[in-house]
Amino acid sequence: MKIVVDAFGNDLGPIAPVEASINAIKLYDDISIVLCGKKNELETNLNKFSYDKNRIEIIDAKDVITNEEVPTEAVKGKPNSSLVRAFDKLKQDDEVAGLVSCGSTGAVLTAAFLKIGRIKGISRPALCPILPTKNGGRVLLIDSGANIDCKPINICHFALLGSGYAKAMFNIEKPRVALLNIGTEDKKGNEFCHECFSELKKMPINFVGNMEARDFLSGNYDVVVTDGFYGNILLKSVEGTALFVMSVLKENIKSSFKSKIGAVLMKKSLKKVKDTLNYNAYGGAAFLGAKKLVIKGHGASDALAFLKSIEQVRTLHINQFCKNIEEELAKVEADK
Amino acid sequence: MKIVVDAFGNDLGPIAPVEASINAIKLYDDISIVLCGKKNELETNLNKFSYDKNRIEIIDAKDVITNEEVPTEAVKGKPNSSLVRAFDKLKQDDEVAGLVSCGSTGAVLTAAFLKIGRIKGISRPALCPILPTKNGGRVLLIDSGANIDCKPINICHFALLGSGYAKAMFNIEKPRVALLNIGTEDKKGNEFCHECFSELKKMPINFVGNMEARDFLSGNYDVVVTDGFYGNILLKSVEGTALFVMSVLKENIKSSFKSKIGAVLMKKSLKKVKDTLNYNAYGGAAFLGAKKLVIKGHGASDALAFLKSIEQVRTLHINQFCKNIEEELAKVEADK
Repeated sequence: MKIVVDAFGNDLGPIAPVEASINAIKLYDDISIVLCGKKNELETNLNKFSYDKNRIEIIDAKDVITNEEVPTEAVKGKPNSSLVRAFDKLKQDDEVAGLVSCGSTGAVLTAAFLKIGRIKGISRPALCPILPTKNGGRVLLIDSGANIDCKPINICHFALLGSGYAKAMFNIEKPRVALLNIGTEDKKGNEFCHECFSELKKMPINFVGNMEARDFLSGNYDVVVTDGFYGNILLKSVEGTALFVMSVLKENIKSSFKSKIGAVLMKKSLKKVKDTLNYNAYGGAAFLGAKKLVIKGHGASDALAFLKSIEQVRTLHINQFCKNIEEELAKVEADK
Repeated sequence: MKIVVDAFGNDLGPIAPVEASINAIKLYDDISIVLCGKKNELETNLNKFSYDKNRIEIIDAKDVITNEEVPTEAVKGKPNSSLVRAFDKLKQDDEVAGLVSCGSTGAVLTAAFLKIGRIKGISRPALCPILPTKNGGRVLLIDSGANIDCKPINICHFALLGSGYAKAMFNIEKPRVALLNIGTEDKKGNEFCHECFSELKKMPINFVGNMEARDFLSGNYDVVVTDGFYGNILLKSVEGTALFVMSVLKENIKSSFKSKIGAVLMKKSLKKVKDTLNYNAYGGAAFLGAKKLVIKGHGASDALAFLKSIEQVRTLHINQFCKNIEEELAKVEADK
């Protein structure tokens, strides 16, 4: 299978995606990479490594879409940008399993809509990041911000997509799907939550009920479904709080000589904590519901994060995520 | 001034509120305490201390309202509970400045509605907890869960209440008030956010615009206003994430002998971090908009947390919080 990588528009420039691509083809015999971006820069970086030239293709794209640009204008106005070229390749080449971009989120979502389109029956594709949990596990959040003002039917689709993703990606047989709410009792929350709750109970998933934000990282859930507005608040407050706690820790370490020594001895442990919290290292956020696999990595993704995102595309493709979702949806419709 | 303390319904029992009351009258000459609860238990605990008997009054209440009870039923069905007796005293005695309870949140809000009522013009009183920020400061969140499906007018009242609270409690001249949203740009978020944004701009407060959940603890804001549903998600995810990070830290410390030694040297620093994150120690959540001051402390409040809540009532009363809010509201109405 081919995997397209948008090699520009990310913070670290082409070196990260290039290094990731080199490692990817060395790790997996069944993939080849298509790098999109400024040809000469890509070649200069590629030539630092020895690799099988037949397995990394370059599509020249002189433009780059930045985070400052208005997504729709940028996607329509920059046909020669690495991002748009990458999506064109994804659309046109049936051998391409999926795409990885660490560029502008808005531009990635827009291009996915305009170029790739949605899985039949899914009206609202959604962003699904992977976060760490207490017991060293993972939890998926869908939607983390692609859609606001969702309807219960959208939340049901998120549940189907997230559940299928947890199965395909982490080999979880019956992913525990929960609805983000302000309490765990069935009748908790606003009218929207009540409707979602009763609709989710009808879905062919392992719906375990409402979840409080406090328990998001508890490890008691595999998939948390919610409107993109709520999901974005949850995701960003997790990020902000983790950074806050680490900064408080740092300040207090600096405050005494004794604790500085302690910190030196704890260096490895503290590093591990930081790594655990850096959920970007688990791969990017999948844009689930698009006709083909699209992974949006964090702008600051390093070579490891890019590699993880490439691995996500590979795993989801091998386990036929998109095909399975289409079949699940057909079943749901048939049962109505 | 008198301050009523509901001495039961909290996790630690009467010893915490009793000790807090003793410390409060020793610290402040201008207050006396009214303890509500089982008389004999309260006396047994009080007699462990030497204090001025004229400054601590007891109202006997044989019943206790638990978190498991349905609030409305409990408040109506248990007139002899410590919580209801406390609210009766708050209602009937003009010398009583305010009330502190660490019992069932639902019961406290219900009793406040039924017994005390709202400040004229405020249709939705709201819960306003205090959280720590990066620079050792504080940020207020209103509403943290008392109201769901708010209207923009409610959010405007929250802004007025929160701003007045920050002035009265922390002596901040022009509290920076922000609207919780999924981005900082003016046009970000759902329809509700757009309406709130334009209405907040008209309020006589220092409205600084939209805030992302990521920046909640950044120290760049004094008051964050939002619907109780969003606010509850934000508050609980902050709690959950802080606990998560600390647990990951613990696990990693245990993982090696070296880091265990390091942890011993860092003991004080780690304790400080824990204290910083324990926002209950800053006092309870004020139920702003009720006719009289009501502070809802955390169920697990210790003597220090109870004392802080008592101090909140005292400070807000001295700085005439309720009176000022009524005047502010009158001005807003007059300007319409």
